[in-house]
Amino acid sequence: MREIVECVPNFSTSDPKTVELILNELKKTKNTFLLDCTFDDYYNRLVVSFFGNKKSVLEAALNMSFKAVELIDMRLHKGQHPRVGAVDIVPFLPIKNVIMEDCIEVARKFGKTLAEKCRVPVYLYDEAATKPERRDLDWIREGEYERLAEMIVKPERKPDFGPAKPHPTAGATVTGARKVMAGFNVNLGTADLKIAKKIAKALHAKKGGFSNVKAMAAFIPEKNVTQIGMSISDFEKTPLYRVFEMLKVEAARYNVPILGSEFCGMAPLKALIDIASYYLKIDNLTEDRVLEIAVQNAIEKGDGFE
Amino acid sequence: MREIVECVPNFSTSDPKTVELILNELKKTKNTFLLDCTFDDYYNRLVVSFFGNKKSVLEAALNMSFKAVELIDMRLHKGQHPRVGAVDIVPFLPIKNVIMEDCIEVARKFGKTLAEKCRVPVYLYDEAATKPERRDLDWIREGEYERLAEMIVKPERKPDFGPAKPHPTAGATVTGARKVMAGFNVNLGTADLKIAKKIAKALHAKKGGFSNVKAMAAFIPEKNVTQIGMSISDFEKTPLYRVFEMLKVEAARYNVPILGSEFCGMAPLKALIDIASYYLKIDNLTEDRVLEIAVQNAIEKGDGFE
Repeated sequence: MREIVECVPNFSTSDPKTVELILNELKKTKNTFLLDCTFDDYYNRLVVSFFGNKKSVLEAALNMSFKAVELIDMRLHKGQHPRVGAVDIVPFLPIKNVIMEDCIEVARKFGKTLAEKCRVPVYLYDEAATKPERRDLDWIREGEYERLAEMIVKPERKPDFGPAKPHPTAGATVTGARKVMAGFNVNLGTADLKIAKKIAKALHAKKGGFSNVKAMAAFIPEKNVTQIGMSISDFEKTPLYRVFEMLKVEAARYNVPILGSEFCGMAPLKALIDIASYYLKIDNLTEDRVLEIAVQNAIEKGDGFE
Repeated sequence: MREIVECVPNFSTSDPKTVELILNELKKTKNTFLLDCTFDDYYNRLVVSFFGNKKSVLEAALNMSFKAVELIDMRLHKGQHPRVGAVDIVPFLPIKNVIMEDCIEVARKFGKTLAEKCRVPVYLYDEAATKPERRDLDWIREGEYERLAEMIVKPERKPDFGPAKPHPTAGATVTGARKVMAGFNVNLGTADLKIAKKIAKALHAKKGGFSNVKAMAAFIPEKNVTQIGMSISDFEKTPLYRVFEMLKVEAARYNVPILGSEFCGMAPLKALIDIASYYLKIDNLTEDRVLEIAVQNAIEKGDGFE
């Protein structure tokens, strides 16, 4: 049975040359497959999604991170997305024939090696966290890169690996294991960031919104619109349609039209099924009832197909 | 490249023993994979969905049909779904690495062999049709089994294979090649078949509804509700959400609630993407942006994965 681990590293750059050199490290690694790669100037952030087996994702994540530490200087970095370092966050996700424990082990190896080789302080988060508060990425990133030096020396913020002081140009890194989540961005027909922030606040877990939802507002200059960027960490418990319907309600309150939306990264099939099932009142739709998946499953289960 | 042809034969039975014996013929055939099998008393109809390569689907479809001709007696058959024979309809669908022409060829071989071995008259329909009017299943099935003897002797209705008279117990068979379609049933909160028929009529292509849509109304005694059974032959041109929204409009007119719905057979991924994209205003979602499909595609394209 082929094991599949996904890795979604986020690097603090949108410089095309730096992006290329980081991706080259992935290309060089056997048994890895690029799924997606996005970078935007307004977030000044590179999000790569790739998969492989436990061994190959670890190797690729490390080599990409070594390159990012070498090339990115956080002292010069500006962007609308919270970040604490050049290799900002490196989560590992169980996709097939691996369990969460496997991904936690990969994250620990990744963090330990990065800290040893680059002297970058590393925190473990989410399923790999060593203390309850560290499950929460926001808690770890509090103060961001700019206030890292003052935060990192607090005893409760001692890194899991590496020194208790920032790497001068690379800051710190967060790694861990988590479920597949849904990243979803909604563009609003307003340039007013204040309104967008109010809408984001209404959805955000810690501000009274849905548990499992993080929502932030950003201004997108080239379109002169605002965007609600969301990540839904458990879209089975908090389905996307419900979040979207509440976003519609809040946007209507400010007479703001919804221009469009997009998945940020890959769309998990289960999220699509939940959307279709809600709007069309479908009773019995599961992943194995989707033609393309059923065909694939039947071939994998069968004893050979010519 | 592995070729995948789907076959969705419909047999006029819901007798469990007969169903089992027909399915046994499929199980015996190498390189075939069962996807789905449903049978209902109110339709008195067995719908099987399976796939394989060109050779294996032909072999399995023939052996299942031989068994159905042997066991089903149309003289005793009653059911709410239109039908013209024991082996009512046998379409072949291109899924992967085959084209429509391949499926037309399989359908022709199937029809020719069934006619020769069983003396069942066979019509070719849809993409395999030999005349424009024969593309239309309804045209071929006009009069159903009960009036087949009087219809089949008309010159314009001469079967494509076999004798121009019904098989006494098996009637006639329709085979052909077609695109993957979406089968979708919606349950209405009314036992009034007249209302359900009005709603079905509003959606049905030939009655002024959407092109690509066939809709029929049926009463479902065990639930004491009515059901709109639809097949959408080209759900890219006539997406499911649009049909469903119109069904909602018509149902509201009669104050009939929509209780729930279900895909009849497998749900094509593209249909789900279209639904999600409409309701959540997603701009850029394609099949290769769905995580499970992207992983599969990457592995297939790559040069091996351990």
